[in-house]
Amino acid sequence: MKLTQPIRLTMVGGGSWATALVKILSENNVSVKWWLRKASDAEHIRKFGHNPSYLSDVQINTRKVKVCTKIRESFKDSDYVILAVPAAFISDALRGLKPDHFTGKSVVSAIKGMVPEANQLVTDWVSEHYNVPNERMSVIAGPCHAEEVALEKQSYLTIASQDTDRAEDVANLLRCRFVQATPVDDIYGIEYSAVMKNIIALACGITRGLGYGDNFQAVLVSNAMQEIKRFVDAIYPKHRDLSGSAYLGDLLVTAYSPFSRNRTFGTLIGRGYTIQSAQAEMNMIAEGYYAVKSIYEINQQFGVDMPITEAVYKILYEKAAPTGAMNVLKEVLT
Amino acid sequence: MKLTQPIRLTMVGGGSWATALVKILSENNVSVKWWLRKASDAEHIRKFGHNPSYLSDVQINTRKVKVCTKIRESFKDSDYVILAVPAAFISDALRGLKPDHFTGKSVVSAIKGMVPEANQLVTDWVSEHYNVPNERMSVIAGPCHAEEVALEKQSYLTIASQDTDRAEDVANLLRCRFVQATPVDDIYGIEYSAVMKNIIALACGITRGLGYGDNFQAVLVSNAMQEIKRFVDAIYPKHRDLSGSAYLGDLLVTAYSPFSRNRTFGTLIGRGYTIQSAQAEMNMIAEGYYAVKSIYEINQQFGVDMPITEAVYKILYEKAAPTGAMNVLKEVLT
Repeated sequence: MKLTQPIRLTMVGGGSWATALVKILSENNVSVKWWLRKASDAEHIRKFGHNPSYLSDVQINTRKVKVCTKIRESFKDSDYVILAVPAAFISDALRGLKPDHFTGKSVVSAIKGMVPEANQLVTDWVSEHYNVPNERMSVIAGPCHAEEVALEKQSYLTIASQDTDRAEDVANLLRCRFVQATPVDDIYGIEYSAVMKNIIALACGITRGLGYGDNFQAVLVSNAMQEIKRFVDAIYPKHRDLSGSAYLGDLLVTAYSPFSRNRTFGTLIGRGYTIQSAQAEMNMIAEGYYAVKSIYEINQQFGVDMPITEAVYKILYEKAAPTGAMNVLKEVLT
Repeated sequence: MKLTQPIRLTMVGGGSWATALVKILSENNVSVKWWLRKASDAEHIRKFGHNPSYLSDVQINTRKVKVCTKIRESFKDSDYVILAVPAAFISDALRGLKPDHFTGKSVVSAIKGMVPEANQLVTDWVSEHYNVPNERMSVIAGPCHAEEVALEKQSYLTIASQDTDRAEDVANLLRCRFVQATPVDDIYGIEYSAVMKNIIALACGITRGLGYGDNFQAVLVSNAMQEIKRFVDAIYPKHRDLSGSAYLGDLLVTAYSPFSRNRTFGTLIGRGYTIQSAQAEMNMIAEGYYAVKSIYEINQQFGVDMPITEAVYKILYEKAAPTGAMNVLKEVLT
């Protein structure tokens, strides 16, 4: 369906996923105010029509996309806000905004991580800090490498909201020649599952770094699906089939991709890098590094059996030797 | 648990999976009579202690493993028979045997395919042709690349039998330093799922050959898990969780491996090779080529919604153009 009314949307974030989403939105009748922190990137996009730092092949239609570096200005008059910064930076990105700035807007999280200082899902954190009612929030879930969106490879998104009409509205913004989007209602299940897949990708990387092969990884991912289901069902009980693309597919695209930052970070740890040297090598921190701490801590209340999460937590936060932790893990997998 | 009584076992087949299984069995107290069709391979193994045609790095302990090329001789006095030839050759391999030769033996299928001329699972076909009662049959399921067994990479097998004590006995033959084995009772579910994963690997290859990327493959595999579950639940209703290693893991190790013969065959088809030229290029036929015909035909009775199987069937048997068939498929995936 083509949108007839131009929709006004604010994009928060200047990374590859934000850039890919701007590309998708430009296929439809959406005018985007794009907030980026980095003034030089914003200026470059204004002048040359592409993001110099991420997916720089993507042409930005600057008639539809207005770039700015002031968060309040970017929020003015928009109907939708899409959040697409790493979870660890969300608090900083939104600094200067008050609940009033969110009034009446539909808020969409494209972030797959926990807000580290709060151990909260991004939607919960935003809802609490800016008084956005739950039914006005939604989540964009993969499986979706931004790089393949840039190449216009056929991709599928799942849009989750407690309000399925809202999920359908957001899906409608994103459907285009090369993207299908399906609305669903399991926002918490999908958000937690998206967070946990980064932990699993870390585990895949660590075992890969230690020399485990494809046979082991297939078993690890199968057991991971069961671990994710146990946790999500405990924390938000609901009938859900985890073989859906937003759960299993999202895990697969991360766990099996050599481009996954979490997997790469894990591989370095498995090869014996310290956390500091792995971070220095990659010049960034993988989302899973924070996620495993949050999920591990949240699970102290629930007591779900989570051997993979535990192994990764112990390696990253308790200085457990990867070899020993994975020797323990391999015995409990089936 | 170490086996105290030496077990006598017949291995039928000379390929890479048979060779890997012989290696595993040699880790335990099992004496193997190994039937191979090819006399020159048998002679080579006798003389030099390795299979010249497959996994030639694997050292065969010829004190424990006796090679022979006469099927009747190989069956003499054994307690277990493991079948490890391609499904299309099982009838030929067992020619010359009568039901009497199977009396009292535990029969284990390590074959992941349908007997093409009968549209039957291997266990059903053997059971019917050689009067082996169902409860004396079991199945060895992956996820397990033979190549990684040769390298002693940590691997996991699932052993399925209607008689779970028997499954445990077979598991016990196979557990070793680098292999864990879990007994389960869903023999039909696991056997069908192992057959169908080759069809999915073909589909992954075809779409890969057409230029689809990782985002699409993740969605394809997620939808495939749902398709496999619908079919298996229709044909053998039972409560089963398809995220187990024998179902999902086995699919992953095949669908994501560049070494999968089915995926490679599919890739050639996707790139525009005819079936004949793809076969000539690979010098073999992929199991999935037969499997898709059997499953498609069996499903004529059941009418399960199987868009992936149908797309592959139409491409391989009805000369449908891969581009067109996948354009139809991509619209129904979610």
